Amino acid sequence: VRDTYHQELDRLSLHLVEMTQLVRSAMARASSALLDADLALAEEVINSDSRIDTLRNQVEQNVLELMACQQPVATDLRALLSALPMSSNLERMGDLAAHIADIARRRYPASVVPAELRGMVREMAQIAEQLAGKAGSVIASRDVTTCLELDTDDDQMDQLHTRLLATLLAPDWTHAVETTIDITLAGRYFERYADHAVHLAHHVVYLTTGQTTTHHTAAQP
Amino acid sequence: VRDTYHQELDRLSLHLVEMTQLVRSAMARASSALLDADLALAEEVINSDSRIDTLRNQVEQNVLELMACQQPVATDLRALLSALPMSSNLERMGDLAAHIADIARRRYPASVVPAELRGMVREMAQIAEQLAGKAGSVIASRDVTTCLELDTDDDQMDQLHTRLLATLLAPDWTHAVETTIDITLAGRYFERYADHAVHLAHHVVYLTTGQTTTHHTAAQP
Repeated sequence: VRDTYHQELDRLSLHLVEMTQLVRSAMARASSALLDADLALAEEVINSDSRIDTLRNQVEQNVLELMACQQPVATDLRALLSALPMSSNLERMGDLAAHIADIARRRYPASVVPAELRGMVREMAQIAEQLAGKAGSVIASRDVTTCLELDTDDDQMDQLHTRLLATLLAPDWTHAVETTIDITLAGRYFERYADHAVHLAHHVVYLTTGQTTTHHTAAQP
Repeated sequence: VRDTYHQELDRLSLHLVEMTQLVRSAMARASSALLDADLALAEEVINSDSRIDTLRNQVEQNVLELMACQQPVATDLRALLSALPMSSNLERMGDLAAHIADIARRRYPASVVPAELRGMVREMAQIAEQLAGKAGSVIASRDVTTCLELDTDDDQMDQLHTRLLATLLAPDWTHAVETTIDITLAGRYFERYADHAVHLAHHVVYLTTGQTTTHHTAAQP
């Protein structure tokens, strides 16, 4: 049997895993809202973001309480402390999903994504969701191999992002300035969402091994 | 005389203040590089970003060591813990300045900012620098009043950001798609830089008062 302190740590991990599920679902719905000009879905994502913020505050509160009551050392201290940046990454992922939903809401009833970009945007959305899912697995399992998978997924995201911007710059791009701005920002939000998932996973590696690892993402577009 | 532990906490604050100076200087140079198509300056900002990352790692390391050796409680624990998100905000501010420099570098020798936007971009750059400066003062003085000033500055930044995007959407905006993308991203980077400065200041309030405060920034463009 695990002692109370370790039960509390487990509970903290479960909270973080729950947050990954929420930000994954937020991203899935935000992307659908963006692709299908679905106002109700967009508003749902925007309105439910506060739930993620609340969970983040709970995680911080729990960390502080555990820190104060238990005075953990070494590995336990690292595990506890890493929950702070992890919850911060998750909160930002929720924000970014809400930003994507907000683009859909602002343009409604018009559709944001032109036909020729639908495939690319759908792919970015899928990678984003996948990254959130894997981030949850990494928290639950502390599996370093899965963590490396996130780096590969993130590289794919960066490539898609570069391709997306290249499409906007091609001579046959003749859409309204509004669309250029929306796609530029949406692309940036997907890419940042992916970055946060990767950082989160690296915090897990840090807590498991005590080694900081850095994943070098591609240069900005 | 202060004891060793509190001397260490002071040293940590000084490190954070030093970081605010570096990210302020990075933003000042990045903005000049953007406005004046100055390649050398842009590269200087990009290359010196690693110095900020190193300081951030040092802050984290110091926090961990102090935590392990001193087992602080209550206020000291809060002061110590808040250094983590603060150093993370500062690292991001450095990244965002480097992103702005990177836009200037990519477009060199062309200039990114069209004549009619120079005033607005210069103003955004000034507010960004001012925010970094005030964030440094707040860390050094823990003055809650200055912290509230940051909220006002950030509101100004949000208004400028909204005006910037409105300019891109006006019928007389006839610049290349490339310029639309660059200005959209640069605007976003300035706005995020300001957000991080505000969050940092709110961490200081938290460490001083134990109360979390949230500054609600304007909705996304």
